[in-house]
Amino acid sequence: MSTEKKIRVGILGASGYTGADLVRLLVVHPNVEIALLTAERKAGLPISEVFPHLVGLDLPGLISINEIEWPAVELDVVFCALPHATSQEVIKGLLHATNHSLLDELIIETVGDQASAIKGDVKIVDLSADFRLRDTNTYAQWYGREHQATEIQKRAVYGLPEIYREQIKEADLVACPGCYPTAALLALVPLLKAGLISAEDIIIDAKSGVSGAGRSLKESNLFVEVAEAMHPYGVGHHRHMPEIEQELSVANGENVKISFTPHLVPMNRGELETIYVKLKDDETADSLKTTLMKQYADEQFVTVLDGSTMPATRMVRGSNNCVLNVFPDRIDGRAIVVAAIDNLVKGSSGQAIQNMNLMLGLDENTGLMQAPMFP
Amino acid sequence: MSTEKKIRVGILGASGYTGADLVRLLVVHPNVEIALLTAERKAGLPISEVFPHLVGLDLPGLISINEIEWPAVELDVVFCALPHATSQEVIKGLLHATNHSLLDELIIETVGDQASAIKGDVKIVDLSADFRLRDTNTYAQWYGREHQATEIQKRAVYGLPEIYREQIKEADLVACPGCYPTAALLALVPLLKAGLISAEDIIIDAKSGVSGAGRSLKESNLFVEVAEAMHPYGVGHHRHMPEIEQELSVANGENVKISFTPHLVPMNRGELETIYVKLKDDETADSLKTTLMKQYADEQFVTVLDGSTMPATRMVRGSNNCVLNVFPDRIDGRAIVVAAIDNLVKGSSGQAIQNMNLMLGLDENTGLMQAPMFP
Amino acid sequence: MSTEKKIRVGILGASGYTGADLVRLLVVHPNVEIALLTAERKAGLPISEVFPHLVGLDLPGLISINEIEWPAVELDVVFCALPHATSQEVIKGLLHATNHSLLDELIIETVGDQASAIKGDVKIVDLSADFRLRDTNTYAQWYGREHQATEIQKRAVYGLPEIYREQIKEADLVACPGCYPTAALLALVPLLKAGLISAEDIIIDAKSGVSGAGRSLKESNLFVEVAEAMHPYGVGHHRHMPEIEQELSVANGENVKISFTPHLVPMNRGELETIYVKLKDDETADSLKTTLMKQYADEQFVTVLDGSTMPATRMVRGSNNCVLNVFPDRIDGRAIVVAAIDNLVKGSSGQAIQNMNLMLGLDENTGLMQAPMFP
Amino acid sequence: MSTEKKIRVGILGASGYTGADLVRLLVVHPNVEIALLTAERKAGLPISEVFPHLVGLDLPGLISINEIEWPAVELDVVFCALPHATSQEVIKGLLHATNHSLLDELIIETVGDQASAIKGDVKIVDLSADFRLRDTNTYAQWYGREHQATEIQKRAVYGLPEIYREQIKEADLVACPGCYPTAALLALVPLLKAGLISAEDIIIDAKSGVSGAGRSLKESNLFVEVAEAMHPYGVGHHRHMPEIEQELSVANGENVKISFTPHLVPMNRGELETIYVKLKDDETADSLKTTLMKQYADEQFVTVLDGSTMPATRMVRGSNNCVLNVFPDRIDGRAIVVAAIDNLVKGSSGQAIQNMNLMLGLDENTGLMQAPMFP
Repeated sequence: MSTEKKIRVGILGASGYTGADLVRLLVVHPNVEIALLTAERKAGLPISEVFPHLVGLDLPGLISINEIEWPAVELDVVFCALPHATSQEVIKGLLHATNHSLLDELIIETVGDQASAIKGDVKIVDLSADFRLRDTNTYAQWYGREHQATEIQKRAVYGLPEIYREQIKEADLVACPGCYPTAALLALVPLLKAGLISAEDIIIDAKSGVSGAGRSLKESNLFVEVAEAMHPYGVGHHRHMPEIEQELSVANGENVKISFTPHLVPMNRGELETIYVKLKDDETADSLKTTLMKQYADEQFVTVLDGSTMPATRMVRGSNNCVLNVFPDRIDGRAIVVAAIDNLVKGSSGQAIQNMNLMLGLDENTGLMQAPMFP
Repeated sequence: MSTEKKIRVGILGASGYTGADLVRLLVVHPNVEIALLTAERKAGLPISEVFPHLVGLDLPGLISINEIEWPAVELDVVFCALPHATSQEVIKGLLHATNHSLLDELIIETVGDQASAIKGDVKIVDLSADFRLRDTNTYAQWYGREHQATEIQKRAVYGLPEIYREQIKEADLVACPGCYPTAALLALVPLLKAGLISAEDIIIDAKSGVSGAGRSLKESNLFVEVAEAMHPYGVGHHRHMPEIEQELSVANGENVKISFTPHLVPMNRGELETIYVKLKDDETADSLKTTLMKQYADEQFVTVLDGSTMPATRMVRGSNNCVLNVFPDRIDGRAIVVAAIDNLVKGSSGQAIQNMNLMLGLDENTGLMQAPMFP
Repeated sequence: MSTEKKIRVGILGASGYTGADLVRLLVVHPNVEIALLTAERKAGLPISEVFPHLVGLDLPGLISINEIEWPAVELDVVFCALPHATSQEVIKGLLHATNHSLLDELIIETVGDQASAIKGDVKIVDLSADFRLRDTNTYAQWYGREHQATEIQKRAVYGLPEIYREQIKEADLVACPGCYPTAALLALVPLLKAGLISAEDIIIDAKSGVSGAGRSLKESNLFVEVAEAMHPYGVGHHRHMPEIEQELSVANGENVKISFTPHLVPMNRGELETIYVKLKDDETADSLKTTLMKQYADEQFVTVLDGSTMPATRMVRGSNNCVLNVFPDRIDGRAIVVAAIDNLVKGSSGQAIQNMNLMLGLDENTGLMQAPMFP
Repeated sequence: MSTEKKIRVGILGASGYTGADLVRLLVVHPNVEIALLTAERKAGLPISEVFPHLVGLDLPGLISINEIEWPAVELDVVFCALPHATSQEVIKGLLHATNHSLLDELIIETVGDQASAIKGDVKIVDLSADFRLRDTNTYAQWYGREHQATEIQKRAVYGLPEIYREQIKEADLVACPGCYPTAALLALVPLLKAGLISAEDIIIDAKSGVSGAGRSLKESNLFVEVAEAMHPYGVGHHRHMPEIEQELSVANGENVKISFTPHLVPMNRGELETIYVKLKDDETADSLKTTLMKQYADEQFVTVLDGSTMPATRMVRGSNNCVLNVFPDRIDGRAIVVAAIDNLVKGSSGQAIQNMNLMLGLDENTGLMQAPMFP
């Protein structure tokens, strides 16, 4: 379409569902060229053997991270879609700055390999949980291991553009929020900031499609175990809790503790959160809704629905949108906020691209204007 | 199997999913013979045209209620699986008692037909909402019409055997609870009675399979609208609310108002409720669980799960069981109670048969010992 | 993106699933502006009330066909996504040419309205079955009514670009193939043309997702009737039969009669055909495959898969692609051809846009380069 | 219910879906007591940890086959639900007869353990493929290993009661048919035996729910890979082919080769076969149907449907039924036979119990009278 040079992007960890959705979105992004795909166990294969639906696309073959030829590959952006805990060391390598200046020169230490220095300004968008928690002690507590890149953590910006847009524009490392936090924070941060709801007793009942559990071979992910059934999991101790609390605490000005219960629903994609809140004095469901409507009036990816239209996951399937609404509760002094996103798009790969667009100075919605796919 | 005379049962409104599940369960009930099936719009057809899966079973053809030949049909039990609001008048006809004694003689007025008197002791199990609400004003308020059989309402027993077993044994009219109330009450009534939880801020987040919406031709029930998607509905004003509140208020000793939000999940059967409660002083998730375990130790259809096993709808598919568990919340002073049932069995037809067994003096579990069907 | 004038398109019958998918694809088409949406029963509503997932898009409101203000609406292209049998009269109105020349002037007779003349060259893409059958007697026989626009039928080009590309470029009326014919013809036409397979005993076992049945309120389309189940329908008399036979007969040079059995599968989208053929002497599955690979080497939307990779509907979900492969049969002298498409895209709306692109002289793939959506 | 001694059954390999369905059916079988459950990798666990839906049932814990205490366990019947290829050696051990007489004394050699002799008449019902193929060379060819119990193969009876009822009654080892062969043979054997159809070009297009693939951790069985999708597999070389051919050849009197293509459908249970056949001279779809109706007039588990009612998997979900129908093809001289079963019941566990009933002289339908579960 355009004769200008394309932005060269690499996807580390391209064999998972998040990687697949990054590819789906990036192949129609007008400014981007996919220059690198890695996958450790599938290294050596064409991506169409791992994801047959990508047959016919002109994409690089899968290689191991160790096989990346730095700096010859000339990447402008790296998406890290690696498993939690492995991102840290890879990104540490990618971002190992020299003494002189932060990003003037990078020493790239590919994992288990010797270092090599490149000059550059590689932007990194991490889709794992590794750089989401500002307090690396909290990380250690919830993930059961010490954080391996605490100094880099300080440079990471939490990648929720609707809250941290300006910081993201300046960042070289963005930590994309988890899917559950994305929906929860879009619903709650403006309400807490405006002081409309109590920080006590925020109850988030979340429901997710199965792609959120990844492509790993676990009995609980088998079709027969999931289809025609549903159940909660991780009650009281899901790892997205501290992430939600971190950001709600910022919005609230002091610590917030939440109740958060995710459920597995027999569908591929989609995430819905039904959030039960206590109203501050004189506030109503209507006043909450008005605040959300003002907050998101100029946002392209967040829609507060009219009247009593129910947010539904089918409204956002395959798209980067979040739909919200607020309802009065039967109990006086309470309200119910409902948010729906596609866990793989606004909850992961789409938001990652939104962040990339901001980091590169592109229009924020470039390549993300897909309408939802319904049916 | 047995040479003794079978109990003759009729099902009014046999063409809905509730009717189908009554048939499924009653055809293997050792003491029962299905003697009558009605369906207004499908009158004249064999039931296998309405439900092809019932082909090959020896069942009476569908007739209109008006065509019932009282008293020749000699029914011992009538299951009313009619739409809400139509049950009232039909049951009023069935139960129109003489002045002399309550059930010594019945005048059967089939709807739109002339009256005929039979002597008898027909037991009626109503699966509609018509006789669940003790206060007929509450009924009028939630169902948008005056109750047409207020005097009969007084004779109706609320058919949750785990709470009203003794009253059900003596009843001639039992109003089976709704599916959502069944799960909610089994989880909450013992906790409120024992004073372990606050009656304030009880939040019930409920999820149901699509059969709960019935077989009516609504766009929202189409496969394409439901599959691969989920959403809440009836937020703040679902008709099962007053029913739950009625029974929780009895347990609590004073009025209870709840927050209740149902969601539609892409599965045929199954219902899960995630219930967020506030603990009274010194109570814990453990103390709640202990109370529930004691309460249900001798119950055949309610199981409190071990350890942190998550209740899941697949554990109860097709069976009359309810599975429960209690979890600590991350917020101090709160706990999460989770309950799962099959909405068509313990939430409807199975519970109706459990009630029938009690009314007739049979073993409560007769015909209801099916193991759940998984896969 | 571009300052050049956009092509103004109208969608007649925008409230069905085909209409929804046309909107999904057209809103990201760089050369197109959606200028008109009609829906008879929903006239007066915003499209987001009919399809909540389209909330937030800048789209015209739904009007009745009778309300179209010809010629002021200045349409360049009309997509007719109306029910079968209603397209005829609407398109007859749209295309009613004067005596002078074929399309120099059009008299637009909106249905039930008075005539008005416009000058124009409106291109019409019909997605109904109304203009697919060249022989209007065959139409009458299979659709149970006389064709109402037999003279216009002659001008219609059968819109399968891989076969009729050159004719489509010149056409003003294109009749888009049905979803089943699309997959069947892409698989079989090159094989019959090349004389590799017998025209006898072609057996097409077809499976489709539920969106193929449309959004109408039929019991058989309810979630509970379809989920966790499958069954054949229309055995021996499905209306797509004569359409497949028409085109196979052209390819074969003499009449072909096929065996065609569609099945309903519990999924929203996707269509798979397993086609059993007899090989001509000396032909093999390999020679068939070689022929298909040559035929489609330069086609952007048809891929013959490598090795024994199985065509699967998930490879084409949401995309305009068709995937094909050929397998040897255990019975000597036979082979199995398998084709998969998305019934709503290559089987309907995507192919319609591919046709529009050709009719307008645009690149054939404009707006259709979406990668499939998996998961 | 009864005071008479229960039949003691053991299930070897109880941790798969077949094992689960055996338990579901046997717990309501009036004459049976489940006395033993084995599972190698899960030995030591209660079955409710492997199958949470079995919580609350009074069942023995899982042990390893090596831990079975022969003869103390006093089994009357053993169901082998072990993986293919492992059954052979286990059953060889179970059935190792002395020289004196066939079943007067058994030497039980549990796998990897020393031998011990018990006196007994244990009946064995094998649900694996190990004893289905009479020709052990054919077994070796299709299963890629030599058969380890060729002498025992001769004693095995093919467990399709509708064909081999009398032999099953006398057998001590019954090899239950595969799910695909069950449906295919019920449809075709009577037609071939009666000489109504050609043995040439029998084409079986089969569709199965995912439980047929077992509970093993394969990517292709993950929810996300299967849901909203379908595809064929094993085209031309599925292992059920030789089994179907073996029995069709018996019926035909000479060798039959079939075309057989299975497909994976996004549902838990259910199997549908659409079978395309050539009619012998003067035969019609009607004459085929008449023959099937006569053949199955007295069978309890096979129903030939009325008129043009389509067999559908939802008609047999959870039940031991097979539904059949025959349709004329559009091609003269051809017909289409459609059969539906539940792959886990009539296709596996239900049929195993039907065989057990016959072997023990019980009523054939004992414990198998469940109506199908719809919804």
